[in-house]
Parts: sequence; C-alpha cells; structure tokens
Amino acid sequence: MLELAFQPDRAAGMPIYRQLAEYLRELIVTGRLPAGEKLPATRELAASIGIGRNTANLAYQTLIDEGVLLAHVGQGTFVSGVAHGPVASVHPARRAFVWDGLFSRSARVPNLTGLRPQTETNVEFDFRGGRVDPEALPVRELQRAYRHVLGEDFPRLAGDLDPLGFAPLRDQIARSLLTRGIRCDARDVIVTSGAQQALDLVARALIDPGDAVAIEQPGYFGAAMSARNSGAELIGIDVDSDGLRTDQLARALRSQRIKFVYTTPAAQMPTGVVMSAARRQALLELADQTQTPIVEDDYDSEFRYDNPPLPALKTEDDAGQVIYVGTFSKAIFPGLRLGYAVVARRLLAKLAVARFAASFGPDALAQAAVAHMLESGVFERHVRRLRSRYAERRSALIAALDASMPDGTTWTDSRGGLSVWVTLPPGADAAAIETDAREAGILYAPGRGFYLDARGQDQLALSFANQTPAAIERGVARLAEIVVRNRATRMSA
Amino acid sequence: MLELAFQPDRAAGMPIYRQLAEYLRELIVTGRLPAGEKLPATRELAASIGIGRNTANLAYQTLIDEGVLLAHVGQGTFVSGVAHGPVASVHPARRAFVWDGLFSRSARVPNLTGLRPQTETNVEFDFRGGRVDPEALPVRELQRAYRHVLGEDFPRLAGDLDPLGFAPLRDQIARSLLTRGIRCDARDVIVTSGAQQALDLVARALIDPGDAVAIEQPGYFGAAMSARNSGAELIGIDVDSDGLRTDQLARALRSQRIKFVYTTPAAQMPTGVVMSAARRQALLELADQTQTPIVEDDYDSEFRYDNPPLPALKTEDDAGQVIYVGTFSKAIFPGLRLGYAVVARRLLAKLAVARFAASFGPDALAQAAVAHMLESGVFERHVRRLRSRYAERRSALIAALDASMPDGTTWTDSRGGLSVWVTLPPGADAAAIETDAREAGILYAPGRGFYLDARGQDQLALSFANQTPAAIERGVARLAEIVVRNRATRMSA
Repeated sequence: MLELAFQPDRAAGMPIYRQLAEYLRELIVTGRLPAGEKLPATRELAASIGIGRNTANLAYQTLIDEGVLLAHVGQGTFVSGVAHGPVASVHPARRAFVWDGLFSRSARVPNLTGLRPQTETNVEFDFRGGRVDPEALPVRELQRAYRHVLGEDFPRLAGDLDPLGFAPLRDQIARSLLTRGIRCDARDVIVTSGAQQALDLVARALIDPGDAVAIEQPGYFGAAMSARNSGAELIGIDVDSDGLRTDQLARALRSQRIKFVYTTPAAQMPTGVVMSAARRQALLELADQTQTPIVEDDYDSEFRYDNPPLPALKTEDDAGQVIYVGTFSKAIFPGLRLGYAVVARRLLAKLAVARFAASFGPDALAQAAVAHMLESGVFERHVRRLRSRYAERRSALIAALDASMPDGTTWTDSRGGLSVWVTLPPGADAAAIETDAREAGILYAPGRGFYLDARGQDQLALSFANQTPAAIERGVARLAEIVVRNRATRMSA
Repeated sequence: MLELAFQPDRAAGMPIYRQLAEYLRELIVTGRLPAGEKLPATRELAASIGIGRNTANLAYQTLIDEGVLLAHVGQGTFVSGVAHGPVASVHPARRAFVWDGLFSRSARVPNLTGLRPQTETNVEFDFRGGRVDPEALPVRELQRAYRHVLGEDFPRLAGDLDPLGFAPLRDQIARSLLTRGIRCDARDVIVTSGAQQALDLVARALIDPGDAVAIEQPGYFGAAMSARNSGAELIGIDVDSDGLRTDQLARALRSQRIKFVYTTPAAQMPTGVVMSAARRQALLELADQTQTPIVEDDYDSEFRYDNPPLPALKTEDDAGQVIYVGTFSKAIFPGLRLGYAVVARRLLAKLAVARFAASFGPDALAQAAVAHMLESGVFERHVRRLRSRYAERRSALIAALDASMPDGTTWTDSRGGLSVWVTLPPGADAAAIETDAREAGILYAPGRGFYLDARGQDQLALSFANQTPAAIERGVARLAEIVVRNRATRMSA
C-alpha cells in the first residue's frame, strides 16, 4: 500500500481535493506510482491524512475523469494502464481529438494486470513470475543457433511466411511432443507468437460476444484477457489440490452452453497443483458428453517434479476436441515469443486465417533458431538442466516456507510449474504485508491478479525460478518476519 | 485456370461424380491444387471433360461437405485454407468432434487471400509481392546486429516485455520519423509484430461488430481482413490517379458513421499512386469535420520515387486523430515481423492492452537487433541502396510495359511502393492469361484479390522488387505475347 506524504494546506486558495489530485498526479507522472498500482480505499486514505472521505472521493474522481486513474468495480482504483500524466498529443493540439466514445467494447474493459512497468528499484528478493535468471539463459546455444540461421539458409527462410509457421519447426515440435505422449505431425501444428497468441487465436475462432468460457480460479490472467477481448463472459471454476473442480464444471455445463474450458492440468497456473487422474477422466467425459472443446495449456510442462509425470490430456483425445497449447518462451527466455497449438485440422485452418489477420506469423529467425536447437538436441539438454535447477529451487522454497512461516500460513504442493501459491494466516493484513515486503526489497505477485472476483486478497504467488536456493531461503525468512510482525500488530490492536 | 486430365470411367462401378471428387481430392492432397486455388466453374468444367453439370456440382458438393473445398458466394469454389485432403485427427477418432457450429462469426467468413502455399515449381518470372530478393537482404548487417544483441546486453533485454515494445527501438523509431516530418517521442510509439498487428490492434480497439470502416479500392487485403475479423462492415472507396477519392468518402461519411478510414497515401497499395496534396487536405478536413480517425499506412514510405516526396498525413495531424503505421519487414525481410504505430496516448494505452492479450509483444531479439541497425546508421544506408535498386527496377518495368504491351493495356504511374497496377485491354480473358502465364513460368497477383467486390478480374499487380531489370524486361515481353495471343484468339473466335 501507498505511503502518502500529503499534507493538506488549508490556508491555500486551492480546494483540498484538488491539492490531493495534484499530489497524486505528480506521483504518477514521475513514476513513483506506477501504472497498474492499486490506490488505497478512500476511507483509509481519508483517515490516514486527516481529510473527509468525500474530499478523497472527489480527488479520485478528478483523476478518473482525466483517465489518469481507473475505477474497477469491486476491486478498487488503479493507476491507468500506460498513459502517465496529462495526455499530450504528438503535436501541440489546437483541438485535441476526443477518443472517448470511439473505443470498442473490449477496449473499454479496464484490463491492467501485467501492464506494470518492469523496472523497480531496491529489489533484493524477486519472487515474481516471468523474470529472467541470467544464469539460466542458453546464451551460447542461442548464439550458435542464430549464427546458423543467418548463414547460407537465410535467403530461403527470410521469406518464409507459411501460414502455419516454419515447417521444420512444426516438424520438430511434433517430434518433441512424443515425450508428452502426443502423436501428431507437422500438419497438426500452428506456431504462434507465444502461447498467448495461441490462446488469442482460439478465442477469435470460437467466441462471439456473449459466449461463455470456463476458466480456472485462481487462474492465468492472460487466458482471461484473450477470451474477454473476444467478448466472452468468463465463468470461474475453482481449483483445489487435485486441480480443476470438475463437479463445479459439471454444474456450470448443465446450466449453460460453454464455448470452451481453459485448464492447465500439468502444472496449474498459479498453484502448481497437478490435475489428478480421476479429474482428468471426469473432465474428458464431461467434454465428450456436452461436446465442449478443452483448451489444455501445457505452458510449463517441461517443469514437472513428479516422476513419471501424468500424460497430457491431449493423449486421450480420441475425438480431436482438445486444443493443446505449448510454449518455448518459458524454457528459453520470455522475450522469445514462440508457442504453438496442436488442434484438429478443421480448427487449425481457422486459426491460420485468424493469425494471418492478426500478425501474419511469428518472427522467422526465431522460428528457425528454435528449430535448430530442437533438431540438434541442444534444447532438450537445456531443459534437463533447467528442470533440475528448478526442482532444487522449488524444494528450497517449500523448505523455507516450512521453516519460517507462522502457523496458519498454507501453501500448495506445487508439483509443476515455477511457483507456489501461498495463503496468509487468518487475520493477516495482506495489503500491509505487501507494502512492508516491497520496502524490505521483496517482490511477488499478489493473489488478487489471478481471480475474476475479489478473492485472492490474502494470497500470493511466489515464483522460485529466478533466485538461488540461498536467496530463496533468506527472502522467505524475511517475508515470514513481516507476516509475523503484521499479525502481532493486528492482535495487539 | 486448372488443366484437368480427368477421364470419366463409365464402365467403373463408382459413380462419375465420386470419380471426379476422388480425382480432385488426389490433386489437393498431393499439393498440385494448392490451398486458396480457385476451381473452374462447374459449367466450364463439365463442358471441358464431357460430363453433366449436375455431376460436376455433386463432385464439388462432396468435397465442400468434407471441408476440402470452400464455396464462396459470388466468387466461386476454392481449395480450403489449410486442411489438405481428408481431415485426419491427431488420433484415430472413434467419434470425431464436430467443430462446425462452434466457430465465431469472424471465423465463418471464408478468407483465403494470401493463404496460398509459397512453393511453386517452374517459376521463371516472379512478379508477386512480398517475395525476397536474396541479393537485397542485409545479411551481414543482420549477422552483426544479432551478434551484438546476443552479447553482454542479452540478459537485460531477454526479459524485456515493455507493453509498448523495446524502449530503445521506440526511441530510434521516433528519431527516424523526423525524416517523414513527424515529430514524436518514444512514448508515442508502440512496436508491433509487423504493420499487420498494428492494423489488427487498431481494429480491436475501435471496432464493435457492425461498425463501418472505409478502405481503399483496390486496396490492401490485410487491412480488410483485420477490420473484418473485428466484425466491421467494409465500405470501399475508389482510388484514381490522385489516390483515395475524397468525394466518394465525403458521400459515405454523410450517409453513415464510419469508425475509421484506412488509406495508404504515400504509395497506394497496390496501384503505387501518390495521394495529391489537394486530396490530402480534403481528407484531413473531412476527418476533422466528422471527427473520424484516419489510419495512415505508410508501409512502403521508404520506397518513393518522387523528389521531394510529399510529407506524411501525420505531419498535419494537429488534433492527434491520425493513426500512423509503419513497418521494417518491407525494408529488411518479410519474415522479420516488426512494425509500429504512432498514435495519441489515449489510444496508445488501449493498443497496449489489446496487444497484451494478443501476443504480449514482438520478438525481443528482433527488436533489439533493429534498434541497433537504426542506431548505427546501417538501416538508413541499406534503405538508400534498396531505394535506388527499386527505382531502377520500377523504370525497367514501366519501360517494358511501354515497349511490349498491346494497345489498350493501361497501368498506373506508380510513384511509390513496389508494384505497378495493370489493366488488361478490353476483351482480354484475364483468367486464360493467368493460366497461360503460369504455364509460361510467370507469376503475379491477380487483381481480384484487392477488391471487396467482383472487380479486378481484368487487372493484375506486378511487383518489380524481386527481379533484375533484365529479367523484368524479358518477363514482361513474354507476358505481353500471351496477352496479344489471347486477344487474337478471342477476336478470331
């Protein structure tokens, strides 16, 4: 939570609400309040700086009217997506064009998650997901692969705009999926700009405004965004220690037509739980009975800590109704935007057409470089190294939580993926803990970003990917102190 | 048009229509009839092979039912987008999942343009657009740039997922746009996966199903696809030798609300005409009066053969209502999917959010490599070399048309871009010419792909980018012979 140094100047000619608005605007323009940041509730803010709640409301409303803040019903007020400070057009405008009223329905939905700027000062322990561990980057492998693709084959691949993606890469993907038990060939695969584009193309091909889509709760916000951008109504289905609750899904499917079910069975995002064999069967049966497609996002399937891992849902997909999605961005680096989908040919053609309109295709050099890494076995070796590295870090995180978190804190038995989902003890003030942690140099993803509704306030996702076991241990110990201190303060209050 | 060696076997047990369906399926499966290929009308087909028209209809319908062919009302029957041959699911299906009925409205529109496979045998003269001239590739420059970005800066940029794109690249884009007279800074720019993604994000941010969008006729099919995929109704505005006909646009704007106007003023796609100064003023005034945004696609602005070139519309955009779109893919290579948009901040934030849902962002290495090429001046030098190369080829093409095309053939005075738009003489059979040309090893883009309606049957776009002046001269001479011969046949018939 935000620490405000604001002092109302009651002697000044400017009304207090305007003073507060100007003060907040200044924080935003200078980047001290980054985009996506949640502001304190006006009640708390008013109390903490000694002004009336209506005054605080007016200040917020002023900035909301300007687009600097965004009010998100039921969730609070946030610094707006990207536009910092007063809107400045490219040229000094005589009469600035008014964009409001022109935006499409999907563009009118405030959709901030993930759009925070990346630079943070004073980060000592970084438990956020999607970060890069410089030591885990396959630098030499990439250097070699790009040197290769910029060699004599370059003219041929420079012009490659196969609507499904670079054919040798599709071939390698099909081969590599044998390790997940999936039998397919290059003609079943479309290469996409990251798994995100695969999710987006599926949404475009299947969703008309108002269609319902079922997604896991907590769950991957990127899947929610792409479905919502196509106009979907999202239906949350809870996750427990066995994965997606198929009993809830069955109820939802009885009460309405659902266009598809989005799930992450191998390593639920963000809890890391693995969907049990019984749930898998139940899900496949439900999908068959109701003729509902399943989107299986196998995004972190390389990082599974059970042995042997359960096979992908896709392996049991006799009818071709599972849309299988994977990615290379997790294993190579996040800025490499390469993923793929394996789907029935009838749908594949639709995805190819949708992608033509969306972006033509993924970067040709990246596709060829990754194809080369797959073909030479370099990728598989890299993933093996990463897997053992992450297994060690996962153990370190769970051991550290065991060792230092106060009673009442719980966390998931993360068996795959790169994060553990932590629930704070009852009575803990998660917002205060988040602020204290940030001040102590600890960053993590707050739980609220993974829910469609107001849940997750007392939860957080800790990624173990980008820190050494020693750093994980110290970071968790420091976070645990903050949790303990917070509880003590609360109890004594 | 297709040459069929089909011989009905009236003694066989199999009905003729099934024989024909099997024969066509075989052509498709083996790739001899590529995806996107238009089939002959059943009347013609039936006559040419000596069967009844109903039999031909039945054969087509059989393959349409299987999804192997697609019927496009008013346009004919085409080989379906991607699915070749009988649909085979990844697994042998017990009960194949039925996808029909699940597709979204946008996915139900047949949209084949551009989805033809790339490999063609026997191509001697390639006048198609978007091809790579191996000699024009900046191979050494790219090798150096990628070596640089995979060096010590790599860990920093590997994780860069700035929602607007790599900041140093945005900065370089803003600087380079000074050469187009556009003053902006990095915070006005979003880097996209090619110009196509920029067009797509604009469509997503502004269009709800049923909204109208005005586009040039003939015009860029990619712009039409992205607008249509967001549910737009497309309104064609004709182009003449002064560019977009603003009188037609004015009428359209009087009769309905138009969400935006798409135009390519610097080098109209595909005619290459430059929008006159008077039309530019008229367009900007219309846009101001009706408060309609303009999408200015400056995709080929590097390749202008007038001196000095007219400035971009964006330079006169005081109000911030011009959405300026550019690309690097044309100047570097098509498989490099990097473009950008320069827009008012209010819209920029919406594009960033839409892009997060669409694909997160463009490839990080490509962004950093191009930033390096811009910063070092290598890109500008490369473009200068390309410009003089293309100017020479453009002159060669126009000289060759002058020298060898029969009277009645007309073509545009292409002052920018990479193609010339040719109208065949009255009475020419464009379809027969296309077939003959293909057989003679000459490929080009038929005019019909650039229209929303049935126009363009007697037109073609000849790109001069990927052949030497000598090859252009010989290719045009050979094409002219075919046109002359076709006319002679027609006239004697």
